[in-house]
Amino acid sequence: MTGPRDRRRGRRRGGGETAPAREVDYRHLRNPFPPVPVFSEDRVGAIHDAALGVLENLGMKVLLPEARALYRAGGAVVDDASQMVRIGRDMVEAALASAPRSFTLRAGARDRDVLMELGVLTLEAGAGAPHATDLIRGRRPANLRDYRELTILTQQFDALHMLTPLVEPQDVPLNLRHYATLEAQLTLSDKFPVIFARGTPQVQDGFEMIRDFRGLSDADFAAEPWCYTIVNTNSPRQLDVPMALGLIDFARAGQMVIVTPFCLMGAMAPVTVAGALTLSHAEALAGITLTQLARPGAPVCYGAFASNVDMKSGAPAFGTPEQVRANLGAGQLARLLGLPWRCAAGCAANINDAQAAHETQMSAWGAVLAGATVVLHGAGWIEGGLSVSYEKFITDLEVLQTFAELCADMPEDDLALDALAEVAPGGHFFGCAHTMERYATAFYEPLVADWSNFGAWTEAGARDASTRATGIWQALLDNPAPLDVPPERAEALTAFIARRSAEGGAPPES
Amino acid sequence: MTGPRDRRRGRRRGGGETAPAREVDYRHLRNPFPPVPVFSEDRVGAIHDAALGVLENLGMKVLLPEARALYRAGGAVVDDASQMVRIGRDMVEAALASAPRSFTLRAGARDRDVLMELGVLTLEAGAGAPHATDLIRGRRPANLRDYRELTILTQQFDALHMLTPLVEPQDVPLNLRHYATLEAQLTLSDKFPVIFARGTPQVQDGFEMIRDFRGLSDADFAAEPWCYTIVNTNSPRQLDVPMALGLIDFARAGQMVIVTPFCLMGAMAPVTVAGALTLSHAEALAGITLTQLARPGAPVCYGAFASNVDMKSGAPAFGTPEQVRANLGAGQLARLLGLPWRCAAGCAANINDAQAAHETQMSAWGAVLAGATVVLHGAGWIEGGLSVSYEKFITDLEVLQTFAELCADMPEDDLALDALAEVAPGGHFFGCAHTMERYATAFYEPLVADWSNFGAWTEAGARDASTRATGIWQALLDNPAPLDVPPERAEALTAFIARRSAEGGAPPES
Repeated sequence: MTGPRDRRRGRRRGGGETAPAREVDYRHLRNPFPPVPVFSEDRVGAIHDAALGVLENLGMKVLLPEARALYRAGGAVVDDASQMVRIGRDMVEAALASAPRSFTLRAGARDRDVLMELGVLTLEAGAGAPHATDLIRGRRPANLRDYRELTILTQQFDALHMLTPLVEPQDVPLNLRHYATLEAQLTLSDKFPVIFARGTPQVQDGFEMIRDFRGLSDADFAAEPWCYTIVNTNSPRQLDVPMALGLIDFARAGQMVIVTPFCLMGAMAPVTVAGALTLSHAEALAGITLTQLARPGAPVCYGAFASNVDMKSGAPAFGTPEQVRANLGAGQLARLLGLPWRCAAGCAANINDAQAAHETQMSAWGAVLAGATVVLHGAGWIEGGLSVSYEKFITDLEVLQTFAELCADMPEDDLALDALAEVAPGGHFFGCAHTMERYATAFYEPLVADWSNFGAWTEAGARDASTRATGIWQALLDNPAPLDVPPERAEALTAFIARRSAEGGAPPES
Repeated sequence: MTGPRDRRRGRRRGGGETAPAREVDYRHLRNPFPPVPVFSEDRVGAIHDAALGVLENLGMKVLLPEARALYRAGGAVVDDASQMVRIGRDMVEAALASAPRSFTLRAGARDRDVLMELGVLTLEAGAGAPHATDLIRGRRPANLRDYRELTILTQQFDALHMLTPLVEPQDVPLNLRHYATLEAQLTLSDKFPVIFARGTPQVQDGFEMIRDFRGLSDADFAAEPWCYTIVNTNSPRQLDVPMALGLIDFARAGQMVIVTPFCLMGAMAPVTVAGALTLSHAEALAGITLTQLARPGAPVCYGAFASNVDMKSGAPAFGTPEQVRANLGAGQLARLLGLPWRCAAGCAANINDAQAAHETQMSAWGAVLAGATVVLHGAGWIEGGLSVSYEKFITDLEVLQTFAELCADMPEDDLALDALAEVAPGGHFFGCAHTMERYATAFYEPLVADWSNFGAWTEAGARDASTRATGIWQALLDNPAPLDVPPERAEALTAFIARRSAEGGAPPES
């Protein structure tokens, strides 16, 4: 954790607006923790080799004819009857040679851009939940209001570096949902946006919306990634139609794909960490290869999301020692490739309690110590991804902000020799000059922690962290940081959506 | 995290008694995480040098004449009028040369013995709280029943490696309290016991009770540590009478002292991490030096417990980035000395909520990544140490058991190539031979986590982690693992206590 760090003034939330601001830049983090290995170097090589063997000998089932054609053109052995594609290791090696090791994600403002390379730490909230829950409104199928509110909340925290589709707005029809979600992202945030890969028409709509809203030429848009998608393989060894289309469409457009097999050990992956990572690695390599066949040099992010199931019930589990180990092992595989990579925290609790806090933090530490470039599901994700808790979003941010603090330089940190001489034995440092000069900015100021004593806390209503978090997200939604959206861009976006909606939108591919 | 580990069958709690047991030894852990630095090597040397300068030039105020005499005899410059003792660096260096780098703590059973050296990871519950709280009986001044119950609970978990005085039994008079607490430790647990250093008479009582209960000769007892105490200096730069007596009495008896300055940055220590560690390091070195003056070679453990206060209120804070950094920096100083060392987790929350879980786990990670030999306050500690929560004790054990799992070898962890070939694309691994052979023991079985889905969880009463934890501690207290206590030893202990109580006990030194 030594060495100089890029520092700029961050915009911290949660109080202290009138106090002198601590100059800690949460927007651009480099991971200060040396990556922790879980396998020997030989073992990492063996897993990589076994994964290449899986692709070469067993192959992937690829449901999209166009993807099979691309693999075939690249030299794969393809059987259209069985849809099986056997991918030679030379093809994988060529793909790894052309995939960029470092690239910059272009957000709506330059200081929101995100560098993608090994060593960077990028934190993200949860993604993909069909339900939302909070202490005021209860648990419900997620709707567009939830999606918009959670986008606003994501915008308020510099420790969240990209937008995520926290929830599925189920009240918006699928042929129109991509308009509503992207409009929310572009008009409520200037962070790097995400598009679900649900078929070419929706994806092309999205590219067009972003290009025009950002005021880019076609060439500008194609030159750098302005949005991303996450492609999950259908483990084991299957790539479905929308996911294959996503790999191809994003690669051709020069936009970032994160290829993440979701491998639950004992369910859709082998029961051992090494076995699950062999499968996960093979599938990620298959996806990365397809992106490079579609467009050599396309920005792609290696992904791994492996945890275990409860072998009594088959239920997914997170925050387990097995997930931590899988995270650490995946980091070793990513470093072997040299690519930026995405990992994940996770939580299977049904409420924002001690279990929930334990699981998300434990798995987040696993991802951080694994050297993950992107840590997904870092805030709000509960029920194994079936719900997002507004309160957990806030309490998890305390963890993420703590990680962000640990990425920063220590504040000017002298040995305080004068103060040590000034304060008498048994005395205190509250009033000494050394303290007075620094106290206002010396320490991280918490978002939701309450450090008052039991008596004061009881008198103030004995509110637990979740209850306090409710007040925080309500206040942030009532008074979010202002965002400068050019009116003509917003109007053009509205007009585009109205026109495309009148045309019937774009039904999803399934 | 690679490399062979000592493995034996652990006794895991919390379910699955009828299933094949996973062979993970929680009793003997080596830390698998490479220590994380927060200072450059130069900076560590500078802090050590500055601490030596503090002792040499500013000195410590030592309230006990006998301690000042020992320091003087060792070469220190002592002023009895001001009680100030200036300790030369040659004296500190001599003490560091004679303090043992490795020694074994002798518990009541050989497989409960604890090796003390750098690289070992020893986990402990909280210590010293004046209150206890649980969801059944509420918050109350701690009593002897609490002390006994918490001793029983500590005994049930192999991931807790020594006994701690979780609470102060305030219903027992101070002249008799040491009898009640040590009787509880010896008869309810076979783990390594702790004695408060409250003056020589109480300490000698304790030594005698342990010697006789363990069936040792005087020479046996003196040859190895059979108990320990924790000495907190009165930061800044003061050593009071009972603490100085503890250092001397334990060192002379060959029993372990953990010397831990408790330095809250901004309050009793400088506001910067480096300044606080300079002070903390100086005080620890002063204490270590006194032990070696009392008896060269006495087993002593370096300690550091530094966190920050809330500069708005002065309230102690834990789980902060500052505590994590102080932990990491203290680890660098301990490794410079080469001594085993004690660090701490911590939590300032008033209830076992997401804040509580966050703070304890964050600070525990700081201690683990700092390479601490002993992590104190790992379970149950809330309100900054003013209370122990029975429910938090249980939920924190989930974290500690996860650390213990991460210390163990990975289970036999092949690449599952046969299973990968056996399971068709899009299929699952639930029934394949590779899974069936391993599923019963493949994964950590949680203590308190509930991984059922929202519907099942709701139907089962929507119980949060704290509520489930209540059921767990109640069940453990109702039916603890049997402990073999020789009746004649227990009778002799009872008789000793009766006799000494009739004699008036031993009033504490203050």
